[in-house]
Amino acid sequence: MKSLVEAEALDAADPLRSFRDRFALPKGVIYLDGNSLGALPKSTPTRLQAVAVEEWGQGLIRSWNSHDWVGAGRRVGAKIAPFIGAEPHEVVVADSTSANLYKLLIAAVKAQGQRRTILSEPGNFPTDLYMADGAAWSVGDARVKTVRVADIVDAIDDDVAVVLLTHVHYKSGAMLDMAAITAAAQAKGALVLWDLSHSVGAVPVDLNGCNADLAVGCGYKYLNGGPGAPAFLYVAERHQAVLRSPLSGWFGHAAPFDFGDDYAPAGDIGRFQCGTPPILGIAALEEGIAQFDGVNRAALFAKGRALGDACIALMGEYCPEMELVSPHDAGSRGSHVSFRHPHAYAICQALIDRGVIGDFRAPDVLRLGFAPLYVGFADLWRAVEVLTELLRDGSWDAPHYHARNAVT
Amino acid sequence: MKSLVEAEALDAADPLRSFRDRFALPKGVIYLDGNSLGALPKSTPTRLQAVAVEEWGQGLIRSWNSHDWVGAGRRVGAKIAPFIGAEPHEVVVADSTSANLYKLLIAAVKAQGQRRTILSEPGNFPTDLYMADGAAWSVGDARVKTVRVADIVDAIDDDVAVVLLTHVHYKSGAMLDMAAITAAAQAKGALVLWDLSHSVGAVPVDLNGCNADLAVGCGYKYLNGGPGAPAFLYVAERHQAVLRSPLSGWFGHAAPFDFGDDYAPAGDIGRFQCGTPPILGIAALEEGIAQFDGVNRAALFAKGRALGDACIALMGEYCPEMELVSPHDAGSRGSHVSFRHPHAYAICQALIDRGVIGDFRAPDVLRLGFAPLYVGFADLWRAVEVLTELLRDGSWDAPHYHARNAVT
Repeated sequence: MKSLVEAEALDAADPLRSFRDRFALPKGVIYLDGNSLGALPKSTPTRLQAVAVEEWGQGLIRSWNSHDWVGAGRRVGAKIAPFIGAEPHEVVVADSTSANLYKLLIAAVKAQGQRRTILSEPGNFPTDLYMADGAAWSVGDARVKTVRVADIVDAIDDDVAVVLLTHVHYKSGAMLDMAAITAAAQAKGALVLWDLSHSVGAVPVDLNGCNADLAVGCGYKYLNGGPGAPAFLYVAERHQAVLRSPLSGWFGHAAPFDFGDDYAPAGDIGRFQCGTPPILGIAALEEGIAQFDGVNRAALFAKGRALGDACIALMGEYCPEMELVSPHDAGSRGSHVSFRHPHAYAICQALIDRGVIGDFRAPDVLRLGFAPLYVGFADLWRAVEVLTELLRDGSWDAPHYHARNAVT
Repeated sequence: MKSLVEAEALDAADPLRSFRDRFALPKGVIYLDGNSLGALPKSTPTRLQAVAVEEWGQGLIRSWNSHDWVGAGRRVGAKIAPFIGAEPHEVVVADSTSANLYKLLIAAVKAQGQRRTILSEPGNFPTDLYMADGAAWSVGDARVKTVRVADIVDAIDDDVAVVLLTHVHYKSGAMLDMAAITAAAQAKGALVLWDLSHSVGAVPVDLNGCNADLAVGCGYKYLNGGPGAPAFLYVAERHQAVLRSPLSGWFGHAAPFDFGDDYAPAGDIGRFQCGTPPILGIAALEEGIAQFDGVNRAALFAKGRALGDACIALMGEYCPEMELVSPHDAGSRGSHVSFRHPHAYAICQALIDRGVIGDFRAPDVLRLGFAPLYVGFADLWRAVEVLTELLRDGSWDAPHYHARNAVT
């Protein structure tokens, strides 16, 4: 990609081009942060109105039956299944990614007999490590161990109950070999819990093809479910009857409306639900997922890889002072690309000020995300143009760009 | 209350009468189930539009700072505080009631040294017992014990770490003496965790006046936050630095955006947050709470008691075959009143069919709830009139009224 004209030609030839029109992107903004918070689908406000005004306002309590609120977690989970190579009855929407990590970590540790170690990698997304810490502390006699991902398989000993890994790394964008790691871990008697937050809707995932055990993922990134959208979890069918959720709330009960004193988990994936499902949030997530209707997923993922490749090439040519953190090879990378710079924070702020929204990850990383449903090649070209200009004129080095926000 | 005319006169004299206009109640419906799902505030759809279109759609990721999404849990928690006699910094909105029960149960058990029993009452709201079960199972060496509420204090021995009670019982409407039970439990070395789901916004609650330790509550009942709204929790200031949440997610971290590997809880009530906060749900809850702006809470609670008293009197006179389950004395009762009948389910369905929405609680209870913000005396009169007619003509005894829904 050597020019804006060429970028525009790629966009014109993009079979997914029309999908961009489904999103309400602000004028004058190039949004390269759909990996953190997906853009607003144009149809979501209408859906929220319908849920609020008709289902809640008019239907009131009756909508638990008449609008299938009671089945919302299973229904929307089933819609996520095709994105991750799962069967519809293996996925449920519930709670947050963090809470779902906790459920499956404790379920796994408890099911693994004497094995008492949760193994992960340092630098994993913080909440994964924090929840592992909380799970081990809750159980009491469990512990968390971290080793570099290259050493993960070697580090699986007889005490490792579950290996917790993020499929696409939130910072580097590096994508792990799910099939190989899963097989190697299982051969050593460990379960594997995959965090798909930066994968689902962005890269191919084939959980059942990898004989995966457990997974969780986020609803508000590439799935466009809105800020703090409900998350999902996957439990392979073969594990469902055995694993018990520590968060054994009434919505995971076999018969919640019998109001019995004794907990008896549902016989299916629904047992991993906890409290009353968040209907507004699940509706927005369902609408976010609906934006993929009609998408050829192979073309979608290919476009994500092409955008990442083009980004790396352009940055290498025009912004060589930004050090590539992500894998060069698109086959080992998610749909975002990261660069290191000692002043990445200020540079990111200056970019946002000029309408190019990427994000900063401490201590020194600028992330550029390519949600292939609505980001085009001309967007990328213009973003690199703005960044090139910034770096050339040094205008990022102003005091207000160095001042930290609460969320950075 | 001897006539519809008298009921209408009471409504005309009601200082809270105008608040009813803030809610979008369906025409032809008398809604006596605000204790299960609060009605839709007229302003909530507009608020949801603003959050979706402006904050999410236009602000995108920037809204974490510019619209204080990052502070939403603390901000809305602070708005709940005055309803429950807490300080603003003692309440946070997060997760579901079920998840919050779990957090505080494990936090309490872990903080209580050798004490390993969670003590509750049989027939408590199921999720309370189920989460206690899950918490004890997670910790491993803890257990749940239930005794009749009249025997609770006597049953507190040296092994009881925490007493888990619901302030207003979901089925009977019976309200416990928070001050007396709290003091007696503390004298025996136990903490008390109060479930305020059926209390907040309906009856006076004075947590700090009772020297309470811990509480949780629901956002979608009297607070009108919408189906599956986020819940809240309270931790007395003196306990905040000591108690640790097992659900130690990144939003409870002291510095979530430093992305460090090690968990370090926030120094305040924020440590009891877990994952990324559900912004749409929190916004709807904030709007629900805003409906109380300008309300004299003493008048509100007095109205709830008066409605309950009038309900009991009318039912005794016109529907004597319905057996009162709730306490006669308004001072020992929440804002709903329950009646037992062997065919309560069919009667409830027939009532709903005629536009009078109460609910059924297994196995044989009809609940009538009086959200004092929008239920009036004429509503009550008409509801009893419909029920009287039904019982007289036996029209509830039709096959379709006996057929069970998923949610009953």
